[in-house]
Amino acid sequence: MENTRQGAEPISVQEAGLKTVFQPKSVAVIGASATFAKWGQLILTSIVAGGFKGKIFPVNPKEREMCGLTAYPSVSEIPDPVDLAFVTTPAQTVPGVLASCGNKGVRGVVVITSGFSETDDSGEALEKEIVHISRQHRMLMVGPNTMGVIFPYAGLFATGSHSRPKKGPVAFISQSGNLGTQLIHWAQQQGIGISMFVGSGNEAMLSCTDYLAYLEHDPLTRIIVIYLESVGDGVRFVRVARRVNRKKPVIVLKGGRTRAGRTAAASHTGSMSGDDAIFRAACHQAGVLNARMPSELLNLSAGFSSLPMPRGNRVGIVTLGGGWGVVTSDECNERGLMVPDIPERTVTAIGRHLPPFWSKGNPVDLVGTRDPGAPMVAVEELLKLKRINAVICLGIIGRDEIVRLLTDSTRKADKHMPEEFLEQMEEYSRNYEEMFITRMVDFMEVYEKPVIGVTLARTERGTVRSIAGKRYSGVFYQTPEDSVTVLARMVAYARRMRGA
Amino acid sequence: MENTRQGAEPISVQEAGLKTVFQPKSVAVIGASATFAKWGQLILTSIVAGGFKGKIFPVNPKEREMCGLTAYPSVSEIPDPVDLAFVTTPAQTVPGVLASCGNKGVRGVVVITSGFSETDDSGEALEKEIVHISRQHRMLMVGPNTMGVIFPYAGLFATGSHSRPKKGPVAFISQSGNLGTQLIHWAQQQGIGISMFVGSGNEAMLSCTDYLAYLEHDPLTRIIVIYLESVGDGVRFVRVARRVNRKKPVIVLKGGRTRAGRTAAASHTGSMSGDDAIFRAACHQAGVLNARMPSELLNLSAGFSSLPMPRGNRVGIVTLGGGWGVVTSDECNERGLMVPDIPERTVTAIGRHLPPFWSKGNPVDLVGTRDPGAPMVAVEELLKLKRINAVICLGIIGRDEIVRLLTDSTRKADKHMPEEFLEQMEEYSRNYEEMFITRMVDFMEVYEKPVIGVTLARTERGTVRSIAGKRYSGVFYQTPEDSVTVLARMVAYARRMRGA
Repeated sequence: MENTRQGAEPISVQEAGLKTVFQPKSVAVIGASATFAKWGQLILTSIVAGGFKGKIFPVNPKEREMCGLTAYPSVSEIPDPVDLAFVTTPAQTVPGVLASCGNKGVRGVVVITSGFSETDDSGEALEKEIVHISRQHRMLMVGPNTMGVIFPYAGLFATGSHSRPKKGPVAFISQSGNLGTQLIHWAQQQGIGISMFVGSGNEAMLSCTDYLAYLEHDPLTRIIVIYLESVGDGVRFVRVARRVNRKKPVIVLKGGRTRAGRTAAASHTGSMSGDDAIFRAACHQAGVLNARMPSELLNLSAGFSSLPMPRGNRVGIVTLGGGWGVVTSDECNERGLMVPDIPERTVTAIGRHLPPFWSKGNPVDLVGTRDPGAPMVAVEELLKLKRINAVICLGIIGRDEIVRLLTDSTRKADKHMPEEFLEQMEEYSRNYEEMFITRMVDFMEVYEKPVIGVTLARTERGTVRSIAGKRYSGVFYQTPEDSVTVLARMVAYARRMRGA
Repeated sequence: MENTRQGAEPISVQEAGLKTVFQPKSVAVIGASATFAKWGQLILTSIVAGGFKGKIFPVNPKEREMCGLTAYPSVSEIPDPVDLAFVTTPAQTVPGVLASCGNKGVRGVVVITSGFSETDDSGEALEKEIVHISRQHRMLMVGPNTMGVIFPYAGLFATGSHSRPKKGPVAFISQSGNLGTQLIHWAQQQGIGISMFVGSGNEAMLSCTDYLAYLEHDPLTRIIVIYLESVGDGVRFVRVARRVNRKKPVIVLKGGRTRAGRTAAASHTGSMSGDDAIFRAACHQAGVLNARMPSELLNLSAGFSSLPMPRGNRVGIVTLGGGWGVVTSDECNERGLMVPDIPERTVTAIGRHLPPFWSKGNPVDLVGTRDPGAPMVAVEELLKLKRINAVICLGIIGRDEIVRLLTDSTRKADKHMPEEFLEQMEEYSRNYEEMFITRMVDFMEVYEKPVIGVTLARTERGTVRSIAGKRYSGVFYQTPEDSVTVLARMVAYARRMRGA
C-alpha cells in the first residue's frame, strides 16, 4: 500500500501497477458469452464494439470463436501475455479463475461477478479468499461486484451499459455501478470527454482513495469526479484528496448524507458509512468541491474541463431578452457573484449595434436584435473590462431551434415563400451558431476569462462543444441557474487556489 | 375594474370580456407581412400554420392575398365581425389602427408593437393615448410590447416564437415575452399541456392580476404559472392570488429578487419593482408557491397538472440500482420528506420477484433484475401501504435507451446474432415502457397517490406522458432531485389546503 508519511507520499507500487492495468495492451474476458445481455456478453461486445485496439481474448470452455475472435477454453491456453482480465463467471468459480490468471502472469483483474461481501458471511469469506489469491500473485483487482471500467485513451470500453463518451480530461470514480454508468451516459450525451471511469465495486483490494492517488500523476486527467458512499479510511481519503486537489479539482458527491440515505446505503453495499458530517466537513476544509446532486457533477465537469479559471467574481451578462437577464442577475447575486456597472465607453461601443432603447448597462439586453455582430461585440467589450471576470451569454446558441420552428411554419402557411430561401435561412442560422462558438473560444484564449453560454432550450448538441486545436471549449448549459452555479464554484475554487 | 370589496369579488366586466378575447372565433392581423421574420409575418404564419379554426383576416394595404387568405387594405373593409385583432404596425400608427378597430366593433386587441412606455416619455404618452382609445371603444387591450398569446383550445397560436404546446390545464402568464415564449417552448418539449399563454407586455390596460382573476373561473385551467417582475398594485395581486390559490395552485417566479436583478428589471421594463421582500413574504403567506428558477416552473407544472395530490410526506422509493436509492433518500430527507420502513409482509411480497440479496426495505433496490413483473409489484406493494403517500420510481423508464445502446453494440460486434432477435428485444423494451406507464397511471387512479418516475437519462419523449381517457398522466423527470423537489412542494401545498 501507499507510504503513509504525511506530506511526502511517493507513488506506491500499487499506483505504478495501476498504469499497466489502466492502459492495457491486451485483455481477456473470462466467462465471455454469446447470450444476449448476460454479463459475459455485455463486457465482450462492449470491448469489441468500442474498438479496443489491443488484443482481445474471449475465454469460454465451449466456444471456438466469439465476435470474430478466437475463443480459448481457459486463460492458461491464451498464447500471448494478458495485461487485464475481466471476470464474469459465477462467484464460487472466481478463486480458481484468479489463480489461473495469476499463474498466467495477468497484471490486473476486473471482477464483475457479484455475490461477495455485499451478500452474506460466506460471500465475505469468498471475497477475502480472492484478495488473498490476487495478493499472492501480485495482481491488482478492481471490484468485485463492479459495473466495469472505461479507458477511452486505450479505446477500452468495458461496462454493462454501452455508453462511449469521448476522450477528455475528466476521471470518474464511482462506488455505485449503476449511478456511475449513468453519469457516463450523461457525459456522452453532453459531450464531456473522460480520461477514465472506474466502478470501484466492493473495493476488496483497491479503494477510491487508491484510484484518486493514482490520478494525481495521470497526465490525461485534469478533473476528478467521485461518487462515494462509504470510506474505509476517511483520514487517508481526506489527506490524499487535499493533496490532489491542489493540482486538479476533486469533486465529490457523498451519498448517505442523511439518515434515510445512510440506511439505503447500508442495505445495498453492506457497509455502514461513518460520521458523515465530520467526513464532509473535513473534505470541505481540504478544499474538495462537494456536490449535492449527480447532475451537478456533470455540470461542474463541463465547466472545469473546458473553461479558463475566473480571477474574480464579477460577471458580465449578455442576453437576447430582458427577462433572462433579470433571472440570471438574481441567481448571480444569490450565489455571491457581482453584476457590476459598465463604463460609458463600453455602453457606447455596444450601443453602435443596438437600437436606441437598449438597456445601456450590464446585463446587456440585446433586445432581440438580429444584427449578427451585436452578440459578439457585446461579449468582447465586456471581456475587455478589467472589472469583468467572466461573461454569461444567454440565448444566442439555441436560437437555431427557434429559427427552424419559424421556417417550418412559413413553409406550411405561405406557399409563395421560395423553399430555397427558407433553406438558406436555416443554413445561415446553423453556420452562425458554429461561428459564434468559435469566436467565444477564441475570446477565451485571448482574454483568459470564461465565457459561458446558456441555450435556454434543450439542444441536441450537448453541453460541451469542442473546436479542434483549441485549449478551451464552448460550454452551453440549458438554464441560467446551471451556468451561475458552476461559475460560482469555479470562482470559489480559484480563490482558494490563489490563497493556497 | 374589478370590485375591490374583500372576500366577495365578483367577476368584473373586464374578466367577462376576456372570455371573448381568449376564445375568439375570428382574428385580424393588422400589419400582416410576407417578409420573412417581420412581426407581421411571424404572427400571421403562426396563426395559419397553427391551424386556427376560425376566420383569419390579414390586413395589408398592398396585398390582395396572403397565405392563401384574402387580405384587406384596412380593418374597416373586413366584411365579417372581428373578435380579436393583432397589431404589428409601427408605434405611431397604432392610435389610428385602434380607432378603426373600435369603429369596426373589434372586441379585443393584442398590440405586439413596441416603442411605448418601455422607451421614453413620448412613448409613454403614446401608450396613454392608445389606452384612452381602447377604453372609449370598450375594447380590451393586451400589451403593448407583447410577444403574443396562445389559446390551444381555440387552436390559436400567435407568438413570435412558433412553439405549439398541446392542450392542457396549465395557464402561463409572463411579464417577459422572451422568457415566457421560452417557457412555452419547454412546455412543448416536455409534453406539458397548456390552457393559455399571455405575454402581458407593458400592461397598459390589462395586468397580470386581471389575467389571474379571469383564470379563477376558467374551467380549462387547473394550474396557473406566472413570471412577474413588477406589480403595480401589489396588495390587489396578493389578494387575488390568495383567493385563486385556494381553488387552483398559483406558482410565481418573481424576477428582481436581488439588487442586481432589480437593476436589470428596471432597465428593461422601465418600471421599478417595489419592496420585493415584503411582496414575496405576502405571496408566501397567501399560500402562493414561489419558484426560484424558470426550470422549476415547468417541473411544478408537470407534477401539479398530472398527479394526484399526496396526502402526506412519506415516500416509497423503487430503484433499479442502489446508488440512486441512496441519492434520492438523501434528497427526500433534506427536503422534509420521510422514507419510512416497510412491514415484513411487503418485504415478502416484493421479495418473490427478486434475488435473495435484495435490499429488503425501502428504498426497494431491484438490484438490476430483469424480471418484468418486479418493478410493478414493488410499486403497487408500496402504494398499498397506509404509511406510504407517494412512490418515486427510478430508472425503469429510460432503460429503453440503454437497451438500444446494447443492441447497437451487439449488432456491431457479433455477426452471428440474428438481426430479427435484436429487433424483437428493442420492440419488447419499447412496449414494456408503454405498458409500464399505463400501469403507473392505473395505479394512481386506484390508489389516489402520486407515482413519479425518474428516467435518469435525457429521453426524447418528454416529462409528461399522457394516456388517452385517463385522469392522471405519467410524469418522468430526468433527475431524482427534480422529482423530490416537486413532490415536496405538492406535499406542502396539499397540507396547506387541508388546513385552509
